[in-house]
Amino acid sequence: MITMKVCIYADNAATTQLDKAAFEAMVPWLTDEYGNPSQPYSFSRSAKKALADSRETIAACINADPDEIYFTSGGTEGDNWAIKGLAFLNDDRRDVITSAFEHHAILRSCEAIKRIGHPVTYIEPDQNGMIMPNTLEPSITTKQPFLVTFMYVNNELGTIQPIQELCEVAHAHNAFFHTDAVQAVGHTEINVKNLGVDLLTASAHKFNGPKGVGFQYVRKGVMLPSYVDGGAQEFGFRAGTENVASIVGMAIALKNNIEQLKANKKKVRFLEQLFFDKINESQIPYIRNGGKQILPGIINLSFDGKDGEAILHRMDLKGISISTGSACDSKNTEISHVLKAIKLDERYARGTIRISLGKNNSSEDIEAIVNALVQIVK
Amino acid sequence: MITMKVCIYADNAATTQLDKAAFEAMVPWLTDEYGNPSQPYSFSRSAKKALADSRETIAACINADPDEIYFTSGGTEGDNWAIKGLAFLNDDRRDVITSAFEHHAILRSCEAIKRIGHPVTYIEPDQNGMIMPNTLEPSITTKQPFLVTFMYVNNELGTIQPIQELCEVAHAHNAFFHTDAVQAVGHTEINVKNLGVDLLTASAHKFNGPKGVGFQYVRKGVMLPSYVDGGAQEFGFRAGTENVASIVGMAIALKNNIEQLKANKKKVRFLEQLFFDKINESQIPYIRNGGKQILPGIINLSFDGKDGEAILHRMDLKGISISTGSACDSKNTEISHVLKAIKLDERYARGTIRISLGKNNSSEDIEAIVNALVQIVK
Repeated sequence: MITMKVCIYADNAATTQLDKAAFEAMVPWLTDEYGNPSQPYSFSRSAKKALADSRETIAACINADPDEIYFTSGGTEGDNWAIKGLAFLNDDRRDVITSAFEHHAILRSCEAIKRIGHPVTYIEPDQNGMIMPNTLEPSITTKQPFLVTFMYVNNELGTIQPIQELCEVAHAHNAFFHTDAVQAVGHTEINVKNLGVDLLTASAHKFNGPKGVGFQYVRKGVMLPSYVDGGAQEFGFRAGTENVASIVGMAIALKNNIEQLKANKKKVRFLEQLFFDKINESQIPYIRNGGKQILPGIINLSFDGKDGEAILHRMDLKGISISTGSACDSKNTEISHVLKAIKLDERYARGTIRISLGKNNSSEDIEAIVNALVQIVK
Repeated sequence: MITMKVCIYADNAATTQLDKAAFEAMVPWLTDEYGNPSQPYSFSRSAKKALADSRETIAACINADPDEIYFTSGGTEGDNWAIKGLAFLNDDRRDVITSAFEHHAILRSCEAIKRIGHPVTYIEPDQNGMIMPNTLEPSITTKQPFLVTFMYVNNELGTIQPIQELCEVAHAHNAFFHTDAVQAVGHTEINVKNLGVDLLTASAHKFNGPKGVGFQYVRKGVMLPSYVDGGAQEFGFRAGTENVASIVGMAIALKNNIEQLKANKKKVRFLEQLFFDKINESQIPYIRNGGKQILPGIINLSFDGKDGEAILHRMDLKGISISTGSACDSKNTEISHVLKAIKLDERYARGTIRISLGKNNSSEDIEAIVNALVQIVK
């Protein structure tokens, strides 16, 4: 097996390294503490307690109540659950409103409910990659949807949407509001009570937790029917033997990210500034996509007339991992639906890369990334 | 935190201890090798290869082709996927036939498709806990279902169903055949080509793999639409960033169980015989449920007029973990639907326990289990 070790990882929006403390917290549940948490005997009690503790930890991180947190297998399941779960309740086949630049977990779940008769309306983001409440207003008035779903942070551009305001518009029109917060949780302050959202989806591996686990916030009083039916786990709303180790890892990872949020943000902002200082110094021409409301660390750049794929592969040869867009769609060599949605000129769109920095990156990484990039683009 | 360490674990049908080699194989994917397998750069190549290798390993264990194996979050998801996935294809709302003693992941998925208009027929198992092809024949002739689904091994009784023969009946009537093989995979020889099944569901934690991961066998040519929509993972049929570590652990665990299958079965059969020798010696009156076709190690016993719950708790006080029935329904103090389905007299049903032995149990364990049980029941 030929493996080339990564020198510099700058694709933290695709996935993140598992937090060390989170890994260590997982080990007992992968070795000696293997009891099924649903069983009533003593051996399972510690697993049951670990689930309850993890639920509390996660709830505290987003100002939810513990019984508003449901464990899932990840963000994709959460998005499917929110959209299809609510759709199956709505026999009258009302509309859903979403945006044109959501993650495919949202877009394809919407296509699925479209097939059973729910019309779907796609709001276009503006050229800065933002969905503004006044763009939602006319559609929602006409369509009277049962559900509005917008992502919290766009995974390609990093743009932070005005979720609280969008949610207010939805509620004023008696629609549920869901947010795919996969790219936001663990990277920005989230207070679900202030936001007012009904449903929020998160994925652990995006905030230094393990892959294959996530959580769903379901506001008390919102009736979201089960999507994975079976045993009585998760208060009867998500069946299947609980992934104890990964849930424990997820909770520790989130807690650590939230405790260090200010420091992490400060560091990543500093690295981002350093990146732009250096790249401006080099005088290679580029544009940055996504306007001003961007999560620290997500850098979406376009080079006029260049080939983003080629840049990615040449960066890779230099031991640097970056992306052209969403990992979930990386086999697709078409222009990203996100860049199409913000109407980026094709010459720029084809020459687009995403660099996403994380708390583990260093100034030396930035130096190396810029040097490599300038060399390649020149 | 007060944790009472288990002395003797005899609930291997609820979950199993993670195989040591499987755990060790997982560690790199939880530490340094964190690349997202969907990304095209070198750092992700090893993760991609690990997925391909795991798929091949698993396929070989059940004589499938690698591209017939899809990774899931576990058996419950697999059961939901099979039933609901096929149901959503069948616009003409045809029937599904299942049995009355399936796992709740099957029963509740059937209830879900019933709500959208598919009639569901429940075949009664016989008193030995078997579904016989001649019981299926009249129903299938009348109902002409699109799908027949029967579990491979009943999780409470351990009875092994004649899957190949049942599948032949289904196919003769142009129905798809799915088997929930969660309690069978890794514990008995499974050759999907000989069985002829269209779909088979497995869960890793039942065969000494990790919790929160499983796989679905989908026979080539069978069109099972995606249930979790989003990115292009799993050939476009199961979206979501892959749980690399757990998938690797699952493959190693299954490979080891299959390589040691003969030895494991022999050992568990020996322990089971020892158990019955000792309990017969004690002369406490009991009946064993489930007839003659039982997977080695699953021992379902009823004590006339006793209380199964009370036996479980008193065994627990002696440091022995056993069960009254399915872990997924352990909050429910009603008589198990499995025992109802085999029409076990209520006096016996209330006094029922399940002891399930695994490859890690020893003769000393059996000695202790019988001693405790005899003391409690007397």
